[in-house]
Amino acid sequence: MKRFKNIGLYTNSLDSEKIFIARQIEEILGSKGCKVLYGDTFKKPNRKQKIKTYSDKYLSSNCDLVIAIGGDGTMLSCSRLFGIREIPVLGINLGTLGFLTDIAPDELTTKLLEVINGKYTLDKRFFLETQIKRTQKKHIALNEVVIHSGAIAQLIEYDLFIDDVFVFRQKADGLIISSPTGSTAYSLSGGGPIVHPSLDAISIVPMFPHSLSSSPLVVNAQSQIKIITFGKKNKANLSFDSHNSVHMPGENEINISKSSSMLNLLHPVDHDFYDGCRNKLGWSSGIITTDLN
Amino acid sequence: MKRFKNIGLYTNSLDSEKIFIARQIEEILGSKGCKVLYGDTFKKPNRKQKIKTYSDKYLSSNCDLVIAIGGDGTMLSCSRLFGIREIPVLGINLGTLGFLTDIAPDELTTKLLEVINGKYTLDKRFFLETQIKRTQKKHIALNEVVIHSGAIAQLIEYDLFIDDVFVFRQKADGLIISSPTGSTAYSLSGGGPIVHPSLDAISIVPMFPHSLSSSPLVVNAQSQIKIITFGKKNKANLSFDSHNSVHMPGENEINISKSSSMLNLLHPVDHDFYDGCRNKLGWSSGIITTDLN
Amino acid sequence: MKRFKNIGLYTNSLDSEKIFIARQIEEILGSKGCKVLYGDTFKKPNRKQKIKTYSDKYLSSNCDLVIAIGGDGTMLSCSRLFGIREIPVLGINLGTLGFLTDIAPDELTTKLLEVINGKYTLDKRFFLETQIKRTQKKHIALNEVVIHSGAIAQLIEYDLFIDDVFVFRQKADGLIISSPTGSTAYSLSGGGPIVHPSLDAISIVPMFPHSLSSSPLVVNAQSQIKIITFGKKNKANLSFDSHNSVHMPGENEINISKSSSMLNLLHPVDHDFYDGCRNKLGWSSGIITTDLN
Amino acid sequence: MKRFKNIGLYTNSLDSEKIFIARQIEEILGSKGCKVLYGDTFKKPNRKQKIKTYSDKYLSSNCDLVIAIGGDGTMLSCSRLFGIREIPVLGINLGTLGFLTDIAPDELTTKLLEVINGKYTLDKRFFLETQIKRTQKKHIALNEVVIHSGAIAQLIEYDLFIDDVFVFRQKADGLIISSPTGSTAYSLSGGGPIVHPSLDAISIVPMFPHSLSSSPLVVNAQSQIKIITFGKKNKANLSFDSHNSVHMPGENEINISKSSSMLNLLHPVDHDFYDGCRNKLGWSSGIITTDLN
Repeated sequence: MKRFKNIGLYTNSLDSEKIFIARQIEEILGSKGCKVLYGDTFKKPNRKQKIKTYSDKYLSSNCDLVIAIGGDGTMLSCSRLFGIREIPVLGINLGTLGFLTDIAPDELTTKLLEVINGKYTLDKRFFLETQIKRTQKKHIALNEVVIHSGAIAQLIEYDLFIDDVFVFRQKADGLIISSPTGSTAYSLSGGGPIVHPSLDAISIVPMFPHSLSSSPLVVNAQSQIKIITFGKKNKANLSFDSHNSVHMPGENEINISKSSSMLNLLHPVDHDFYDGCRNKLGWSSGIITTDLN
Repeated sequence: MKRFKNIGLYTNSLDSEKIFIARQIEEILGSKGCKVLYGDTFKKPNRKQKIKTYSDKYLSSNCDLVIAIGGDGTMLSCSRLFGIREIPVLGINLGTLGFLTDIAPDELTTKLLEVINGKYTLDKRFFLETQIKRTQKKHIALNEVVIHSGAIAQLIEYDLFIDDVFVFRQKADGLIISSPTGSTAYSLSGGGPIVHPSLDAISIVPMFPHSLSSSPLVVNAQSQIKIITFGKKNKANLSFDSHNSVHMPGENEINISKSSSMLNLLHPVDHDFYDGCRNKLGWSSGIITTDLN
Repeated sequence: MKRFKNIGLYTNSLDSEKIFIARQIEEILGSKGCKVLYGDTFKKPNRKQKIKTYSDKYLSSNCDLVIAIGGDGTMLSCSRLFGIREIPVLGINLGTLGFLTDIAPDELTTKLLEVINGKYTLDKRFFLETQIKRTQKKHIALNEVVIHSGAIAQLIEYDLFIDDVFVFRQKADGLIISSPTGSTAYSLSGGGPIVHPSLDAISIVPMFPHSLSSSPLVVNAQSQIKIITFGKKNKANLSFDSHNSVHMPGENEINISKSSSMLNLLHPVDHDFYDGCRNKLGWSSGIITTDLN
Repeated sequence: MKRFKNIGLYTNSLDSEKIFIARQIEEILGSKGCKVLYGDTFKKPNRKQKIKTYSDKYLSSNCDLVIAIGGDGTMLSCSRLFGIREIPVLGINLGTLGFLTDIAPDELTTKLLEVINGKYTLDKRFFLETQIKRTQKKHIALNEVVIHSGAIAQLIEYDLFIDDVFVFRQKADGLIISSPTGSTAYSLSGGGPIVHPSLDAISIVPMFPHSLSSSPLVVNAQSQIKIITFGKKNKANLSFDSHNSVHMPGENEINISKSSSMLNLLHPVDHDFYDGCRNKLGWSSGIITTDLN
């Protein structure tokens, strides 16, 4: 297993708890001869205690590991920024343990040292790459791409093609195209299945479809997914990880496929995907499971 | 049964087919001594053939029946405008027969004469009345009220109270509060049950709830439904019949209840709610019902 | 409020904990001058400590209240036996609090004395009455009637009529006809909505329907529900509260309607239906509700 | 592409239409120098027109193609009998075209000659192999394995392990373990996703789960799926393709995995999986898709 020397720190929004955790990480890693580089979001005006920070670009070029401090949402941004360049990422979770961020503050020292010493599980996840034909721009998502009418209860109409084979024409509020990583997130709320991260598959889940005959569809991740939206007046949006959003009105061709670069997500060695499901989704928690005797 | 003298014509958007149907109606009704009043939407600039039109207000004061020409969406607007004042409404459907508009153009003469002669079914439907505490404004919907985060995959958090009893705190993209009339529309796409129009009930259906333990809830229509939204930064919207929309950011108290005025929806005497379900929802259409022998 | 003198005790299956609770109830009620009558199930061979027991028939004729000791399943049987004769029933729950049995052992004395002294909430629930045309027998259920093919993944085909109006022809493993009381039980597992107990409504939920176009349907409880099963070879069963079961092969006509007798279910005064939902269904329990920041 | 010489004919139940089709096939294939062998089910007492039939065993040893005449159910049996030995199979569908049987009688000659001449699409499907630890018996299914409590609304409790990792403990009526081939059958009725046949995946779908937090799960088909049932009194059954059934009461360990032998399913060259979905599931059929304008 790889060992790490230059380690970036990433967070979405700053607060004193995150600075405290970051300082702890710096101390733990420093004691092992690692260098810690704070990302840009650790810079804050009017703060006495100065932190030397580096640009995302600098981190990208100089780090062999980036640690995300926050929740799964923080890890999503971190992955799109650094993970997409195949820099390994590791998550420290300040709230309830997440699917992507699974080291708790109270086990920080032990787990971090283990990881630094090469004792970790490498979990390869794939990104979804979206290309809008008209703009020729590429967009990256780790969880899901959502094509949406831009307003609730406003139908958008589109054709779905997989590997250039026509699948269906559908009217719905939108369509969720999800990686296995995203299958426990928005797709799940929309009735999509949980897809194990090791499966090379993409889920396609309609949002408020106009016809009852719609159903979630799981296809090979090697597939080229093409969506053609109709209607010159539609105000469709594309959203990536429910974060970045692109306004894309009118008729469009959108191509979605598995990205060639993979996320190298690190976990402590005792990591267990299903443990995350049980904790986060309430599996086997005994709800309703009372005594109808 | 009541007979009708002054009959308003209503449509959403004008085209030549609708004008043709409107002229037919005028002729049929004229032959029976009824007076037809065209609503404002029949006025169109640069049209040779002039139509004398009247304001909604004039129609409200002078008609004892309003005929909506279009689809179910046209009838929704017509109902909120004229039905809310308990003026009977009748629908001519130019496309596939709807739940609310059930006279087809090819049976126009027969059915219309029957209705005019008092041979019809009176179908009482209730409206939902929404009051936003902060603005003190009232809003009317026939199908449903939707509280929504204002963007997809953006959670809104709220407490639900029914008759001042706490029901649940929920995080979701939004919440659909639907009348039985709306139960075959947006609520159905969101997994809500079909509620027979004769039932005095309101459905409450979460949209993309953050927890799998959520379920549609059907309560007595006499209930006072109160929703309190949280979070100063939320950009929540309220939408009425997926048509009128109110921006309602931050913390709010929304009260929804059955309106005191009822819609008097007229149907031809052979009207059958379940026939509409079979046609529009594909019930018993034999789909998948093939031969696994 | 009514006060009670002769109070029956009912349980499904006997164990030492239930005898202990029964003895406690006898002592509490005895101190207030009430007479306690043990039902038949309290009789057990080879038990030193003799309990004088009475037949269900005797209890029916002599009790003005029956207390069910067990869970919601015990209350279902108790209701069909005694509640159907409009004898009030009250539930002591030995496990997790149920929807129907809501006094916990550790609050037994206080709550029981309150109820005996007339301080209680009366919750009227309706029974479903089923008549099979061929056998002319009547069957009673409090939660639900299930028509089932008799085996998994074996389709049964039937026509549904409501008030003699044809609704649909359907192929499915079966059909659940549920009262509001049953809406939080089997019907919920099958995707049916939660229906508030105060609503005079019946839910109709298909089980593994052959067509995706099926949806739960909620109708007025005053409706006559008629199901006609097809196919001379079908091995259909009717099940009442998932308890009593009737083999009913071949072609049959089944009529289901609201029973004329109502269940008088007593609750402590602080009873709250939604509290039961939150406890039993995990509402607002914060599951998945973590920090995607 | 392989060409075929000795071709078996298979059906489930005999009728005059199937004999007519079989005779046609014999004539078409005979004209090309192929030998047709009728399976055992074509033997019928009291039939004037004698057909020489062969045992399944003889067909297995002597055929290089077996043609199933019937529907998808016929192909399921045919696949378990002959396909499991990697003998290619082809389906003639007498009813609505199925997912597995996709040559219609009216295109029999053309399509059959094409296939015989090596112009076909080879569609590899995998079987599920089930081993019950106690009996040490193996069972084969093409669509799905169902573990079921043996009665409706009777819960069975079990632990699920995947590759010896604990997934969840669950109470439900049962559990469906489905191949992609089965994902458009029973699993779909139970809310499972449609899984493209090219995906090496297994779906796990709970039936009427006791907890709302359950969700369909899609895992890698290389996984070892282990289910341990609880409760000495349970009357559990295992069912294979909703056809063969094994009574398996009490506590059991069941191991399910992808079989090493693959089904070689032949299709005409214009075969399209999504075309089957559109036809059989009503996709893009325009249901509800009317005009809410």
